Amino acid sequence: LSVPINVNRESDEPLYLQIESQIRSLIRLGDLPAGTRLPPERTLATSLGVNRTTVSTAYQELAADGLVEGQVGRGTIVCSLPDGRMQGGEDSFPQPLPWSEFFSVGEGGQDSLVRDLVALCAREDVISLAAGVPAPDLYPIERFAAVTDQVLKGHGSVLLQHCPTEGHLPFREALAELAAGRGVAASPGNILVLAGSQQGLDLIARALLKPGDPVVVEVPTYLGALNVFRRAGARLLGVPMDEDGMRTDLLERLLTRYRPQLIYTLPTFQNPSGVVMSQERRRALLSLAERYQVPVLEDDPYGELYYSERPPAPIKSLDRHGHVIYLSTFSKILFPGVRIGWLVAPRPAVDRLGLIKQHTDLHSNTLAQWALVEFIRRGWLQEHLAALRRAYPQRLQAMLAALREYVPDGLRWNHPGGGFFLWCHLAAGLRSTDLLAEAGQRRVAFVQGEAFHADEGGQGSFRLNFTYQNVPAIREGIERLGEALEVLLADRREHRAARRGTVRPIV
Amino acid sequence: LSVPINVNRESDEPLYLQIESQIRSLIRLGDLPAGTRLPPERTLATSLGVNRTTVSTAYQELAADGLVEGQVGRGTIVCSLPDGRMQGGEDSFPQPLPWSEFFSVGEGGQDSLVRDLVALCAREDVISLAAGVPAPDLYPIERFAAVTDQVLKGHGSVLLQHCPTEGHLPFREALAELAAGRGVAASPGNILVLAGSQQGLDLIARALLKPGDPVVVEVPTYLGALNVFRRAGARLLGVPMDEDGMRTDLLERLLTRYRPQLIYTLPTFQNPSGVVMSQERRRALLSLAERYQVPVLEDDPYGELYYSERPPAPIKSLDRHGHVIYLSTFSKILFPGVRIGWLVAPRPAVDRLGLIKQHTDLHSNTLAQWALVEFIRRGWLQEHLAALRRAYPQRLQAMLAALREYVPDGLRWNHPGGGFFLWCHLAAGLRSTDLLAEAGQRRVAFVQGEAFHADEGGQGSFRLNFTYQNVPAIREGIERLGEALEVLLADRREHRAARRGTVRPIV
Repeated sequence: LSVPINVNRESDEPLYLQIESQIRSLIRLGDLPAGTRLPPERTLATSLGVNRTTVSTAYQELAADGLVEGQVGRGTIVCSLPDGRMQGGEDSFPQPLPWSEFFSVGEGGQDSLVRDLVALCAREDVISLAAGVPAPDLYPIERFAAVTDQVLKGHGSVLLQHCPTEGHLPFREALAELAAGRGVAASPGNILVLAGSQQGLDLIARALLKPGDPVVVEVPTYLGALNVFRRAGARLLGVPMDEDGMRTDLLERLLTRYRPQLIYTLPTFQNPSGVVMSQERRRALLSLAERYQVPVLEDDPYGELYYSERPPAPIKSLDRHGHVIYLSTFSKILFPGVRIGWLVAPRPAVDRLGLIKQHTDLHSNTLAQWALVEFIRRGWLQEHLAALRRAYPQRLQAMLAALREYVPDGLRWNHPGGGFFLWCHLAAGLRSTDLLAEAGQRRVAFVQGEAFHADEGGQGSFRLNFTYQNVPAIREGIERLGEALEVLLADRREHRAARRGTVRPIV
Repeated sequence: LSVPINVNRESDEPLYLQIESQIRSLIRLGDLPAGTRLPPERTLATSLGVNRTTVSTAYQELAADGLVEGQVGRGTIVCSLPDGRMQGGEDSFPQPLPWSEFFSVGEGGQDSLVRDLVALCAREDVISLAAGVPAPDLYPIERFAAVTDQVLKGHGSVLLQHCPTEGHLPFREALAELAAGRGVAASPGNILVLAGSQQGLDLIARALLKPGDPVVVEVPTYLGALNVFRRAGARLLGVPMDEDGMRTDLLERLLTRYRPQLIYTLPTFQNPSGVVMSQERRRALLSLAERYQVPVLEDDPYGELYYSERPPAPIKSLDRHGHVIYLSTFSKILFPGVRIGWLVAPRPAVDRLGLIKQHTDLHSNTLAQWALVEFIRRGWLQEHLAALRRAYPQRLQAMLAALREYVPDGLRWNHPGGGFFLWCHLAAGLRSTDLLAEAGQRRVAFVQGEAFHADEGGQGSFRLNFTYQNVPAIREGIERLGEALEVLLADRREHRAARRGTVRPIV
């Protein structure tokens, strides 16, 4: 632990008091939580360039106030604060700044859920079937390094300056062609380059939503979008899905009743459900949006990742009157670290979103934009997509086989035709949070269904990713999952009556 | 011009009507403004795979409604819309979506000013003394390419995955050391990596500000910060500066009267004024922030770029009780295209800002973070800073000499000890927007003083950048500026009486 402390020799305040008051502040601010071990006196003294006695005196003062204590064999440890975190002794001025009182927006409800999951997946011994990340062993690193080096050495003094907020023009031209290949007509002026599609969600929410504005979402849907809409204060209106995608027959009632500000849909290999919206529903959704004059946000990260037949063209390909913003990304078809997404929209929307982006981060990473132009120009993106369409079905089949082999009765799953995910349903009465707790002990992770639900639902469902792990790890992960489910089923048999009706918190 | 049109052969609607209705929509939406030339019939027919007659019929329909007209030698041109932009004929459904009615936030007042300036500077024949960009001819491209290639080939499959929202840990460790070198004590947990310091401003505004919240700013100050605070709906409270920086004697009255939510300061080689806040004022500012419990945002892009004596350490180095967020960037000391900034703050602030960042863009560009770790580890950042500290004073001296040589009486300027800018004041009665109009005709650009003012002030001042252009271009630019000023002075002599009292719009 390095403790951030400044000492000022010009000050009249004795050095030991300077050290003591800053550690006191760090403890009160939460920078040094209870149980933290302070640096050994000698180490701190050396790093500050003061005598060891000075540090020792400071520690003794802190101990006298009950803020730290010496523990045998562990050194000096921060104690729990008695109740009121900000309460001090006599020295009431200056006080540490109570940052939490200054924050204007509350946390989204799901943030802790996602954070816990990230922490679990960060453990090296855990097989994560949670992350929505492409296979790292398939990243075209040599090729990406080659184009990066080429553009950097060839055009570094230009590309390392600023680029337009809307994006590097040759890249927007390349994206217009990419869009055309998906059936979406766009000129470069209709395209906005983004720092990942997450930024697109955020900019659109900032441009369109005021607190209380109704937003239509599919149930279930992408958790990152839910978080953004929640943070914007939107009122989420969930529309159920079936095997043909969003139930547009139910959508119309919501449109008449609530006049929503936005319809968010992920029509192709949906996250998390894997569902592809039928052509008929795509037309129906657009037609409703036109009739009720509601903007549509079509999120399409996975459309190119089909493993049998090609899915219908994006809703945007049907859009004649500028109702649809089409959002896509390189995170799923290349790698997330490139941090490049893009959207296609009518010019007035591109202009407005670009203006907000200008205030947000000026423009996206230029090196990646230049490198991608060259990567696409050489045909390497299409070659890579073809390779993914060969590799991922093998991982999907391996996961389906392992589920049949290792998982006991009590679980259903779908058979997606593309994308990244299996969507699983537990037998009635079983909860995916309970399963995740068991699975975590067996070092395998997935994402609970709640995370994808605008409402309270999803407690019996969860999402498995089949692209990130290789086949042996997939088999091992599903075997562990099967064991976890066995425990849950045995547990239910034993405690059936006792457990019924209890409410479990989301962890 | 490529026109984004989709045709659908499965539809019952005739192809010519599909084309006609979409062009109609594009015209109404503003995607095809008046005067735009439509593609030749044959070209559009080929690209859509339809007969030329189909396109021809569509164009004739549009012409019959007065939306387009044929012009000899120019082809088919979009006409101005008669008044009501959305008005149509009988075919009132479906209508194009009126996007502007859906946008929840207004444009910031200065956006058009900045855009006009960007457009002027984008012209290749213009010598821009406007941009705050480091010298492209000094970019360490070979070295940056070397570390980029090394980390990409050595660790691509790891670094191209996601990294933590707060930043790649070894990079945060390197930044903590960089901060320590500036006198700012920080542990990696106090550091948040950003997509440029602009993102820091935006995140802090989102975390701390509600519409109407008072924010203290220096007069003048960085225009990008003003834009962010304005967009957040903040009430800007300007504090004048003198040669020792912000007038802290005037600050206290604002703190007692308005209880501001934030104090924004740029204490070292301030943008645009070049002023360095004195050590005494730094202490006074912090002491006021502690007494009135107000967060301070210290923006420090230029602190390392001193050309004579080293400036006082950042205010953050004095911060004992967690009142200061310290913001810095690589855009000014390396190149803007790297899009990496960073901040140092108490843990609770880092946590909250990180949470908002997670929803905004997940995390910053990982390749740049890894490359910078290696660049810093090899000592190349310090070597580059030393090179800049040798090169920029030459450009500064060249600009000062050229000003003395070419510019007539009627202009004062400062002699900054570091940073990027000269701050200039015109003789009474002259306006920098008038000067910019003349200068633009002579192909030289700068930024008008208004852009840096929270209030209506700054009309007689402007900012010159001395880092971006090389010495010959600086001399040429200042010579042109001198000519522009001559014209303004002659103009004033001739029209003195007539011009007095007129109000000029900001262009």
